[in-house]
Amino acid sequence: MTTTDRLDRIHRLSERARADRDDLDAILDAASVGTLATVVDGLPWAVPMLYARVGDRILLHGSTGAGALRHVAAGAPAALSVTLLDGLVLADNLYNHSANYRSAVVRGALTSVPTDESDAALIELSDALIPGRSTEVRVASRKELAATLAVELTIAPGGWTVKVRDAPPSEGAGDPDVWAGVVPLRTVTDDPIRAPWVNATTPVPESVRRLVSRE
Amino acid sequence: MTTTDRLDRIHRLSERARADRDDLDAILDAASVGTLATVVDGLPWAVPMLYARVGDRILLHGSTGAGALRHVAAGAPAALSVTLLDGLVLADNLYNHSANYRSAVVRGALTSVPTDESDAALIELSDALIPGRSTEVRVASRKELAATLAVELTIAPGGWTVKVRDAPPSEGAGDPDVWAGVVPLRTVTDDPIRAPWVNATTPVPESVRRLVSRE
Repeated sequence: MTTTDRLDRIHRLSERARADRDDLDAILDAASVGTLATVVDGLPWAVPMLYARVGDRILLHGSTGAGALRHVAAGAPAALSVTLLDGLVLADNLYNHSANYRSAVVRGALTSVPTDESDAALIELSDALIPGRSTEVRVASRKELAATLAVELTIAPGGWTVKVRDAPPSEGAGDPDVWAGVVPLRTVTDDPIRAPWVNATTPVPESVRRLVSRE
Repeated sequence: MTTTDRLDRIHRLSERARADRDDLDAILDAASVGTLATVVDGLPWAVPMLYARVGDRILLHGSTGAGALRHVAAGAPAALSVTLLDGLVLADNLYNHSANYRSAVVRGALTSVPTDESDAALIELSDALIPGRSTEVRVASRKELAATLAVELTIAPGGWTVKVRDAPPSEGAGDPDVWAGVVPLRTVTDDPIRAPWVNATTPVPESVRRLVSRE
């Protein structure tokens, strides 16, 4: 095996596509913001959006005032890209520096959630992002729902790609006296900040305590 | 002023576009992964990429083995979307739940960095992502550079959009006894993990110590 072969093998092993639906679901469920890409007048168009997976559906949420979202609600082909950056990978040479990450791209045609289902969609989205919150606050009014544009993307076989890197740097010279390794990255929550009009004595609700403690 | 007017005003104030170039640079420099979107055969195409801003240039880095990247290296129109999720925003009603974030989209035509400049580009990218690292390790060999595809996007006036939300939830009923507020999110580094072949006594280099302490 030549050095080149070996390097190629390491690259293939450490950074690879995954075909398991469970891997896709785990990545989608671990993040809450993705980048929605579509084509408008032949040009690429991208916007970050809050989303949640509910079974085979990915619910995305926007305001009908958000002109941009209107472009994609009419059956336009779209791609939702979700990335979790898990670490910076430092090799013993510049070429092999990399990142550990989990990423997913789901492709499909965006569809609007019908108005009479947007209430349920908003609750499903909320339950996925902040479990329990929907039972603590009033639901949306009819007027608010009318101003809500819920769109969804269906996860279809062959319609998604998962790529993961979760490994030490490529070995390079393998010198034990030259530091190489990974700097792990992680998202944490800080103490909740109450809104200005909320009393200091108002208890932090269960849903928020759960968010903060789930790290 | 009607309630609707007031809500609209609050939305406008709390979530807004910013036209200041400094805001764009700050967001681009605070992140290291973006989603590159382009159009391939009329369909949207999106992939996460490491990037760094150097002045008006955004350098993106990939392997020439990454078939996907080849599509976009030939002057194709592209959009790079970068998002930092800063917090979950919990209102007193489901409709006004939101997120605090900083986001930027840079649009333009991707160009390949000429081969004789790819060494410099790799060093610039490294210096931006991990300051000091390029002086600690050997640079890339000619063979490695040949396998590196460096592409760049130029930041042009009118070619970018910044949107930021950094505020408490919309006031809603304003009841002081109902908790509403923000759960801040933040990315932290964990202790560096040395590669398997590196001695436990090999000192962690300055560049890594700086990464870990910059939080």
